[in-house]
Amino acid sequence: MNGFNHFSPTEIVFGCGRINEIAQLAARYGSRALLVTESMEGPLAPTFARIKSLLEDGNIQVEQFDGVIPNPTTDVVTRGADMAKDFGAQVVIGVGGGSSMDTAKAIAVEATHPGTAWDYNCHTDGPSERTLPIIAVGTTAGTGSQATQCAVITKTADKDKSAIWHRNIFPRIAVVDPELTATMPKSVTAQTGFDAFCHNFEAYLSVNTNPLVEVMALDAIRRVVEYLPRALADGSDMEARAQMSWVDTLGGFTNSNAGVTLPHGLGMQVGGHCPNVTHGQALAAIYPEFTRYTYPSAVGKFAAVGRIFNPALEDEDDDTAAEKACVAIDGFLKQIGLWIGFKDLNVTKEDIREIADCGQVLGDYLNNPRVAGIDEMYEILMACYERK
Amino acid sequence: MNGFNHFSPTEIVFGCGRINEIAQLAARYGSRALLVTESMEGPLAPTFARIKSLLEDGNIQVEQFDGVIPNPTTDVVTRGADMAKDFGAQVVIGVGGGSSMDTAKAIAVEATHPGTAWDYNCHTDGPSERTLPIIAVGTTAGTGSQATQCAVITKTADKDKSAIWHRNIFPRIAVVDPELTATMPKSVTAQTGFDAFCHNFEAYLSVNTNPLVEVMALDAIRRVVEYLPRALADGSDMEARAQMSWVDTLGGFTNSNAGVTLPHGLGMQVGGHCPNVTHGQALAAIYPEFTRYTYPSAVGKFAAVGRIFNPALEDEDDDTAAEKACVAIDGFLKQIGLWIGFKDLNVTKEDIREIADCGQVLGDYLNNPRVAGIDEMYEILMACYERK
Ligand SMILES: NC(=O)c1ccc[n+]([C@@H]2O[C@H](COP(=O)([O-])OP(=O)(O)OC[C@H]3O[C@@H](n4cnc5c(N)ncnc54)[C@H](O)[C@@H]3O)[C@@H](O)[C@H]2O)c1
Ligand SMILES: NC(=O)c1ccc[n+]([C@@H]2O[C@H](COP(=O)([O-])OP(=O)(O)OC[C@H]3O[C@@H](n4cnc5c(N)ncnc54)[C@H](O)[C@@H]3O)[C@@H](O)[C@H]2O)c1
Ligand SMILES: [Fe+2]
Ligand SMILES: [Fe+2]
Repeated sequence: MNGFNHFSPTEIVFGCGRINEIAQLAARYGSRALLVTESMEGPLAPTFARIKSLLEDGNIQVEQFDGVIPNPTTDVVTRGADMAKDFGAQVVIGVGGGSSMDTAKAIAVEATHPGTAWDYNCHTDGPSERTLPIIAVGTTAGTGSQATQCAVITKTADKDKSAIWHRNIFPRIAVVDPELTATMPKSVTAQTGFDAFCHNFEAYLSVNTNPLVEVMALDAIRRVVEYLPRALADGSDMEARAQMSWVDTLGGFTNSNAGVTLPHGLGMQVGGHCPNVTHGQALAAIYPEFTRYTYPSAVGKFAAVGRIFNPALEDEDDDTAAEKACVAIDGFLKQIGLWIGFKDLNVTKEDIREIADCGQVLGDYLNNPRVAGIDEMYEILMACYERK
Repeated sequence: MNGFNHFSPTEIVFGCGRINEIAQLAARYGSRALLVTESMEGPLAPTFARIKSLLEDGNIQVEQFDGVIPNPTTDVVTRGADMAKDFGAQVVIGVGGGSSMDTAKAIAVEATHPGTAWDYNCHTDGPSERTLPIIAVGTTAGTGSQATQCAVITKTADKDKSAIWHRNIFPRIAVVDPELTATMPKSVTAQTGFDAFCHNFEAYLSVNTNPLVEVMALDAIRRVVEYLPRALADGSDMEARAQMSWVDTLGGFTNSNAGVTLPHGLGMQVGGHCPNVTHGQALAAIYPEFTRYTYPSAVGKFAAVGRIFNPALEDEDDDTAAEKACVAIDGFLKQIGLWIGFKDLNVTKEDIREIADCGQVLGDYLNNPRVAGIDEMYEILMACYERK
C-alpha cells in the first residue's frame, strides 16, 4: 500500500427532517448567526424563512445575507463579510447549493482576515484558524461543498474563477436533509447530480486517490446510477433524493481527499469565462471527450466503473470494458438529459481558445491519469463543441 | 435511507516511514510534548527512543512518561497527568498499542480538568474542549484507538473497566506507520488483528450502523481475511502489515461511529475482572457463541460476511450462508491460533458469574441485533468455558 493522508473533519448530520436541529447545532458556536442565502425571490424562499424561524425559536439571533448568486463573485462575498462584521456573527450558516455554501465559507474568511477572501485562495497560504465556524446546509445534491475545504469564487474584475482550498474552511457541521432538495427542478437535479457523479469518479481516478476514497467512490457511483434517474423521474421520490444527498456528501469526502481531475480543471475555466453555463453543464459537455482521452491510462478503473453502469461488461476483458465504459457514460448523459455540446451552451470557439489557454491555472489536470498539455486541452474542448 | 450522524475528525497520516514527520506534526500544537509509552525495558524501546530523537531533532522538547501497562489503570493515568502538568505539555503523544494511546487520551483529560480522568467517563458529560491535543501513534494493528473518541481504563480500586467516550478525545492526528508494527510477536499480531476484525464486524452489525460504516467495514473484513494470515505467516511481510494497519484504522472509523456490540460489552468486563486476559483473547473466547446467538437476527449481514470468508457460500441462500458464517469465523479463529475457551485463559466459573452480572454496565450490548439479558449473557459465557 502506498502512503496517503485522509482528513474529513466535518460532522455529518444526515436525514429527512434533521434541519429541525439547526438551532441546537448553531448554539455550539454562539448566539449570533449570519444566514447566507440567495434572494427571497426564488423557489427556496420558504426554506430560508423556515430555517430563520427555527434558529430564532432556538434563541439564535439571525442576520440574513440574501445576496448569493450562482457562480458567486468576490463582490458578493465582500458585501456578506461586511454584514458579518457589523453584526458580530459567531457562526456562518450557508443554505442553498454550492454557490451559497461556498459564499458562506468565503465570508467566514473575509470577515476575520485583512483584505478580501480572494487573497486567501489556493495560490496562497490560505486562511488562518480565526475563520468563523461554518455550518453548511445543502439544498442541491451535487457539489459536496458541505464536506469540503473548497470554496469556488469568481473574481468580478477579470472573469477568473478560482477557489479557496484550505483545512480551515471545512464546515464544522453539514446538515444533509434530503427533504430540502425535493423542490429542485429537473434541470438542477440532473446538473448537480452529474456533478456529484464526477466528484466521485474523478477522485477514484485521481493519481492522489486512496483506499478509503476508492471504496466510497465506487459505492457512490453504484448509488448514482440507480437513483439519479429515479429522482429525475419523480422529484418527490424521497428515497431517491436521500440517496442522491448521500452520493453528494460522499463526493465531498472523496474530492476533498483525492482531488478532482481534468474535467473539473477545465470546467472551472468554462464557469469563469461563461458565467451563464452551470458547473454541471460544463462537466457534461466535456465528459465524452475526457473519457476517451483518459481511459487508456486507467483501464482497470474505467472497466470497474463500466461494469457498474452495464453489468454485462462483467463478461468482457478489462480493455473492452474500459472502452465501453465511455459509451456507458454517454448513455447516462443522454438518460439524464445532459447530452450537450458547447454550442448548445453558447460557448463560442473564441471562448474555447481562452478556456484552453487557462487550462493549467489550477492543478486539477495534474491528478488525471493522463496529463494533458494546453494543445490537447484545446483539442478536447473543440471536440466537445457540437454534440450529435 | 434512515438518518444518522457521522464524525471522524482525526487526520490520518498513513504509510511506511511517515513517523519521520512526527516533529513537524507535533509543532502544530506547541513545542512541549509529553510522550506516553510503556517502559523502556520492552521490545518497543528502540521505537520510543527513535521517536524521542525525531521530536528533539525537530525542536520539540520532550518529557517521556513510560509508565503505561496493558489494560491501563487510573493510577497510571494520574501519574502521567501529574507529569504533563509539571512539564506544561502542549500536546500528548501516545506511542504503542491501545493501552498507550488510551492512556495518552486519559492523561490529556486529567491534565486539564479537576479530579481524575475517571470522573469524565462515559457515564458523565465527558471532558471539555480544554483537553490537550492528542497525537496517536499505533504500534499494534488492532484497537483503532488512533481514530476513536474512546479511552478504555480500569479503576484500580474496584476492577471496574470503563471508558471515556467523548468527541473531545479524538486524536487530532493519527500517524499510522505500518513499519512500527513489524516487531509484534505472533500472539499480539493475532489478538490485535482479531480485535480489528471485531470492530468492523460489530459496527457493521450494530443497530446504529450507517451506509458509510457498512462499506468501510466490509472492505476491512475483506482485507483482514486475506492479510491477517499473511502477517502471521511472515511478520516482515510489509504489505500484510500495512493492510492490517489500515484495517485497524477503518475499525476505528467504524466503531467510533456505529459502536460495537455484545462481544465488546462482555469482553470489557472480562478485561476488568481478569486483567491478565488480553482484549483480543476475551473476544476470541466469546465469538463462537456470540455468532450463533446473533445470526438469526441479522441473516443478511452474516450471509454477506460468510461469503467473504467462504466464496462458495455465494451459491447458498442467505439462511444457509448466515449459519455457515459462524463456522467460517470458527475456522478463522483456528487459523489465527485463537480457538480458545475461558478455561485456557484461567477465567473461573465464579469470574464468569461476576462478568455476566456486569454485562449491562456498558451500553454496547444494546447495539447487538439481538439483545441479551443477564441470564443469556451468563449462558453465552458459560458455553465459552471449554473449547474443544
Ligand atoms: N466547494 C466545492 O467543493 C464545490 C464543488 C463543486 C462545485 N462547486 C461550485 O458550486 C457552484 C454550483 O453549485 P450548485 O451546483 O449546487 O448550484 P447553485 O448553488 O448555483 O444553485 C443552482 C440553482 O439551483 C437553485 N436551487 C438550489 N437548490 C434548490 C432547491 N432545493 N429547489 C429549487 N431550486 C434550487 C438555485 O436557486 C440556483 O438558481 C459553482 O460555483 C461551482 O463551481 C463547489
Ligand atoms: N480506545 C479504543 O478505541 C479501544 C478499542 C479497543 C480496545 N481498546 C483497549 O486497548 C487495550 C489493548 O490494546 P492493544 O491490543 O493494542 O494492546 P496493548 O497496547 O496492551 O499491547 C499489548 C502488548 O503488545 C506489546 N506491543 C505493542 N506493540 C508492539 C510492537 N510493535 N512490537 C512488540 N510488542 C508490541 C506491548 O508491549 C504489550 O505488551 C485494552 O485496554 C483495550 O481495552 C481500546
Ligand atoms: Fe464539481
Ligand atoms: Fe476492541
